Amino acid sequence: MQKIRLGILGYGNLGRGVQYAAAQNADMEVVAVFTRRDPSAVKTVLPVKVESTARLKEYADKIDVMILCGGSATDLPEQSAETVKLFNTVDSFDTHAKIPAYFDALDAAAKQTGHVGAMSIGWDPGLFSLARIYFGASLAEGSTYTFWGKGVSQGHSDAIRRVAGVKDARQYTVPVESVLERVRSGENPELSTREKHTRECYVVAEEGADLARIEKEIKEMPNYFADYDTTVHFISQEELNRDHSGIPHGGFVLRSGKSAADSKFLMEFSLKLDSNPEFTSSVLVAYARAVYRLAKEGKTGAVTVFDVAPKYLSPLSESEQRKQLL
Amino acid sequence: MQKIRLGILGYGNLGRGVQYAAAQNADMEVVAVFTRRDPSAVKTVLPVKVESTARLKEYADKIDVMILCGGSATDLPEQSAETVKLFNTVDSFDTHAKIPAYFDALDAAAKQTGHVGAMSIGWDPGLFSLARIYFGASLAEGSTYTFWGKGVSQGHSDAIRRVAGVKDARQYTVPVESVLERVRSGENPELSTREKHTRECYVVAEEGADLARIEKEIKEMPNYFADYDTTVHFISQEELNRDHSGIPHGGFVLRSGKSAADSKFLMEFSLKLDSNPEFTSSVLVAYARAVYRLAKEGKTGAVTVFDVAPKYLSPLSESEQRKQLL
Repeated sequence: MQKIRLGILGYGNLGRGVQYAAAQNADMEVVAVFTRRDPSAVKTVLPVKVESTARLKEYADKIDVMILCGGSATDLPEQSAETVKLFNTVDSFDTHAKIPAYFDALDAAAKQTGHVGAMSIGWDPGLFSLARIYFGASLAEGSTYTFWGKGVSQGHSDAIRRVAGVKDARQYTVPVESVLERVRSGENPELSTREKHTRECYVVAEEGADLARIEKEIKEMPNYFADYDTTVHFISQEELNRDHSGIPHGGFVLRSGKSAADSKFLMEFSLKLDSNPEFTSSVLVAYARAVYRLAKEGKTGAVTVFDVAPKYLSPLSESEQRKQLL
Repeated sequence: MQKIRLGILGYGNLGRGVQYAAAQNADMEVVAVFTRRDPSAVKTVLPVKVESTARLKEYADKIDVMILCGGSATDLPEQSAETVKLFNTVDSFDTHAKIPAYFDALDAAAKQTGHVGAMSIGWDPGLFSLARIYFGASLAEGSTYTFWGKGVSQGHSDAIRRVAGVKDARQYTVPVESVLERVRSGENPELSTREKHTRECYVVAEEGADLARIEKEIKEMPNYFADYDTTVHFISQEELNRDHSGIPHGGFVLRSGKSAADSKFLMEFSLKLDSNPEFTSSVLVAYARAVYRLAKEGKTGAVTVFDVAPKYLSPLSESEQRKQLL
């Protein structure tokens, strides 16, 4: 069997996750990792060639799908439209407000050179988006709810670290169980994001810092914490390292509604992930398979999870899918 | 807006459900119900024209998608390949072992006249199949589990009614909560269907019947009950009518696995349905929209949920989907 030849552009948590995920898929191989850093300084979790991004062009015929593992804030908006001119791509772009413009730019660039660019792949956006579209279509009258967590929010953790006197911190977004239960009961409440979640902060303070002031500053921080039910726990660096070094995440998508004959229905999808980036990467790799197959069929342009029929994701043949999974 | 013109072939629980579901979708209208019975004898839940199946041909240009609402045992295998020669179709064929042959026959017939036939649509097969394929692709190493219930099994209820001295009966398939918890804990046990489910029977006995004998006959019935943990409750016809007249169902699809770096992941999809046929119908109607759009694009042949990109299901435009659901 000829394997699908993957490239990894950017080597942080996601890039490492793609290496791990590709290792679990017999039809995949990672040809090279590309970095803007000095390649000799990059230590990979599994053996693989590391190249400078300056050499991307040389790989145009050696890689079937390039997986973009940079961040949504600056990396992806710069890289995706350029990279899709050379390769089919998959990325995890998740800046929601900018999705329409990002789609248009990627679509135009991909069509220029006859490639496919899959964007906003992962679990949210990604599998959670799939739940929202399938649930909404399957049950026309109802309400859809997304809850995140329990999981680490990198942005909120960073915000705490900027408070004077804070040495280190980890913030968890936690769904409110009682509100989840209200949704499950079919009550169909109207809920804001802040009503659905609480924020738990684990903070390592510098020696002699004013803990009361730090706690107050965190809890009153606008946008990040002021509107939420926030708890602050001061712990030692050892405790933080021991108990909070992982990057778990997850969440719930629910849709509750009724038939025209008043029968109640509840649909629920949930994820519980020890490692947010490793799971995201695992989904990226599945969509790399889809992109490879779509490109073989002559498809070009940008796609999201909404545009990709599920058959393209599975390593099984279509008749095996029908036999084993239908 | 021009509505999608639906036909309903067969008017039992599913046909009624399709009428209810179409009423919740602004882009749909039901043109006619077709029956093998005397049309004047069919009382519909909402106003609609009722026609004899003998007049199906006259509607070839008046209906965009015919929804086949017959049973999998005899109706669908007879009807689907014939009907798809006249119309695009959607059906809920669920006899698992016969899916490959059914697909081939439908595919050949649909291609003959340039139609699309969507088969095995509903929640299992259907949405549960989608969970199985998406979960499997997203997490290459792991185990997938399907649990059914709590819900009414028509076949098992019928089997009880055939026992001498039984006047009426209702059987519920119930997932074993402790086994569900073992799966959720990441234990990845190997489980047979009977280890995952128990069977609860509510039985109305004829006056003077030997209850001990009835209970024994039920519990020892091969295939249906002998291998299961089965409980039998004798109740009155009034109690059965009052407490067990609904057709609820539901279930769970779970996948539990690990990354190559040993991070644990759990994916779970569940449904809780007051009415099994009404929810199935609601999914049939969503796929009628997809079939209509696929046919407009020139697609022909048989499709299952695996072949249909989610974008075809939603009433929203593609850019609205990206804005609101991605």
